[in-house]
Amino acid sequence: MPGYARRIGTMAASVGQLQSLSSSLVGGYKVSFGAGAPAVEAYPFEKLREISQEVFSGPETGLDAVKYGSTLGLDSLREAVRDHLLAPRGLEADIKNIMITAGGIQPMNLLCQLYIEPGDVILVESPSFIHGTTIFKMFEARLEPVKLDDEGMDMEDLEEKILRYRPKLVYTVPTFHNPTGVTLSTERRKRLAELASKYDVAVLEDDPYREIRYSGEHKPFIKSFGDDHIILSGSFSKIFSPGSRLGFIVASDEQIARLSDIKLCTDTCTNTVSQAIAAGFFKRGYYEDHLKYLCDLYRSRRDAMLKALDAYFPSCTKHTVPDGGYYVWAEIPGLDVKALAPEVGEKLGICYGIGSTFYTEGNPEGAGLGTMRLNFSGLTEDAIEENLKKLGEYFKAKLGE
Amino acid sequence: MPGYARRIGTMAASVGQLQSLSSSLVGGYKVSFGAGAPAVEAYPFEKLREISQEVFSGPETGLDAVKYGSTLGLDSLREAVRDHLLAPRGLEADIKNIMITAGGIQPMNLLCQLYIEPGDVILVESPSFIHGTTIFKMFEARLEPVKLDDEGMDMEDLEEKILRYRPKLVYTVPTFHNPTGVTLSTERRKRLAELASKYDVAVLEDDPYREIRYSGEHKPFIKSFGDDHIILSGSFSKIFSPGSRLGFIVASDEQIARLSDIKLCTDTCTNTVSQAIAAGFFKRGYYEDHLKYLCDLYRSRRDAMLKALDAYFPSCTKHTVPDGGYYVWAEIPGLDVKALAPEVGEKLGICYGIGSTFYTEGNPEGAGLGTMRLNFSGLTEDAIEENLKKLGEYFKAKLGE
Repeated sequence: MPGYARRIGTMAASVGQLQSLSSSLVGGYKVSFGAGAPAVEAYPFEKLREISQEVFSGPETGLDAVKYGSTLGLDSLREAVRDHLLAPRGLEADIKNIMITAGGIQPMNLLCQLYIEPGDVILVESPSFIHGTTIFKMFEARLEPVKLDDEGMDMEDLEEKILRYRPKLVYTVPTFHNPTGVTLSTERRKRLAELASKYDVAVLEDDPYREIRYSGEHKPFIKSFGDDHIILSGSFSKIFSPGSRLGFIVASDEQIARLSDIKLCTDTCTNTVSQAIAAGFFKRGYYEDHLKYLCDLYRSRRDAMLKALDAYFPSCTKHTVPDGGYYVWAEIPGLDVKALAPEVGEKLGICYGIGSTFYTEGNPEGAGLGTMRLNFSGLTEDAIEENLKKLGEYFKAKLGE
Repeated sequence: MPGYARRIGTMAASVGQLQSLSSSLVGGYKVSFGAGAPAVEAYPFEKLREISQEVFSGPETGLDAVKYGSTLGLDSLREAVRDHLLAPRGLEADIKNIMITAGGIQPMNLLCQLYIEPGDVILVESPSFIHGTTIFKMFEARLEPVKLDDEGMDMEDLEEKILRYRPKLVYTVPTFHNPTGVTLSTERRKRLAELASKYDVAVLEDDPYREIRYSGEHKPFIKSFGDDHIILSGSFSKIFSPGSRLGFIVASDEQIARLSDIKLCTDTCTNTVSQAIAAGFFKRGYYEDHLKYLCDLYRSRRDAMLKALDAYFPSCTKHTVPDGGYYVWAEIPGLDVKALAPEVGEKLGICYGIGSTFYTEGNPEGAGLGTMRLNFSGLTEDAIEENLKKLGEYFKAKLGE
């Protein structure tokens, strides 16, 4: 057989880790803190049924849901993005600057097609979202990590890395960061937008979790402080359904035109069946109540997780306290949680997100050895308490505590 | 702003032509022979309504339709591909070798990610499907044309071009070829499979039209004569709905594993909403009757087109007589139909597929000047007759006939 393209080699190690993380999404483990999926209780089936009834009642309502759609997406869904997801959070946008994508992952792929040549540097948070960094490796980018603390990406370190590496792109998950759950402060958002313009670097503001906030105030979009250097992406996966594969990009006229060319050469257009159903969900005014329901559901689960970590984990454990999103990031200094994972799976039937997986090349050997990404969205409060208790006791025993 | 990647330049000319062809799909023209979309009458709304009612009745039936799915696709839809689209046409496959894709276009993108480096040669039919060739340009491939006649790709010319250019990939639409409507003979299918193994070249057998056959006998898949060198792709766009964005790839275990990695880094998985609805359509046994209905509908339209071309077009006109698919390919020697297109649009309100658009680099200057791709799927018999009459009379006047 002809040899594979070089990118298959550069992505191999990373995609292997990503696949094993993803396998905890589609089953196999009894109890998974490793996943990153909505709760089973999160889906508005009754409303989906009602809307699909109307959509499929005939060509008058249904034709847009079944025929080829515009590469940019259905106007009705782009209007929903504008009116329900951007404007209420302080970003005014025209629908001509909004493109619907196949979920929140596709924007990274499309943006790499637009900007990235093999060897180009992309700056990423340390740790960073492994699905994103794996895509960057598929495009043969070189990754350089930027420090992250409780207020998100460190702007001094970012400027230093921009000067040192002359990157093409900065990738950030600013709100309820994956994997750590931290949120970039408003000051730093402003500063990031300034640095992008000053040094002529593109920034992908990847913001799929922003809407599901359980405490504290909404932060402005980085894009609201910046110019065309900031490309914003979002997702319907956490607020509607990941299976519907809907997301969006907000960018300049010129960028949207080129991204539309690339999208046409990737999958023609985003599936119109779920676009039409999602647009109907927003149009009928169901979204705001549904979001409140989701936030109430997940807030309790987050609180259960924070309480259980404090109650049952080793006394040396450090963890983040996220205001939203899906994850708590925990560290047990002195433990190699990657090495323990197979035993934990076998003995306790529990899996967790191995933290070192989220540290890319450019980090010191052994970075994140004691860290874990713990998902709370997919488990009930009781299951969280019961299983974190087991896990905490197991770790305590390992530490001789 | 940072400069775009080089591929944006290499794809620019081709994607511009593709965009203008695509714009005739989403409206703007009064009468479009340029489009390539199903008839408005082709969608089984009543059944979609019934199936979506069941799917969305609750988590028991609906969870698989809304949550993250496997990168390979829902088992139920992969089984439908195996049992309804492959086995009845003589190809036995295991579902582990079938991956669901976002429509029939995505397989080209994924396969380029797998095999193509900038500068690699891809052999394509002359003329060839412009959406495919534009994707190949996005991956910075070099295209070389292979002769095509009434029995499809010319195998002698193919062997000569393989020896001359040492291509990585041969791209073919073997059944009811886009844009010409011709079908590769069984003899040549065997020969193509032999040549692929002999010279170690991958072949993408892109077969989205195969099911909608109006006359003649089904031909075997090229893949049924070949080994792993033949990668088969298909689509649900012509037999179910293009908006659902469903297609598939059939490949070896190893290729599927790598394509799955790439798919994960493109859009995570194909949308499960339309996967579940499509799977329900096949499972309930609706497909076979629906296909018969579609073939009857389109056969009449094809016949109306062939009749009108013979009756109204200039006497020197040559055209193909396709046994299926969406297109007739017509040539009026001595006319530059590209130059006439704006006037035809303005005066008659009619557009057609400009044939020269489908001739890639490597063809002589001015190739296909008098050729047109004429779509018959999207217009009623009356509209076909009425508008081809107008168009024929216009062309006759131009020739002084």
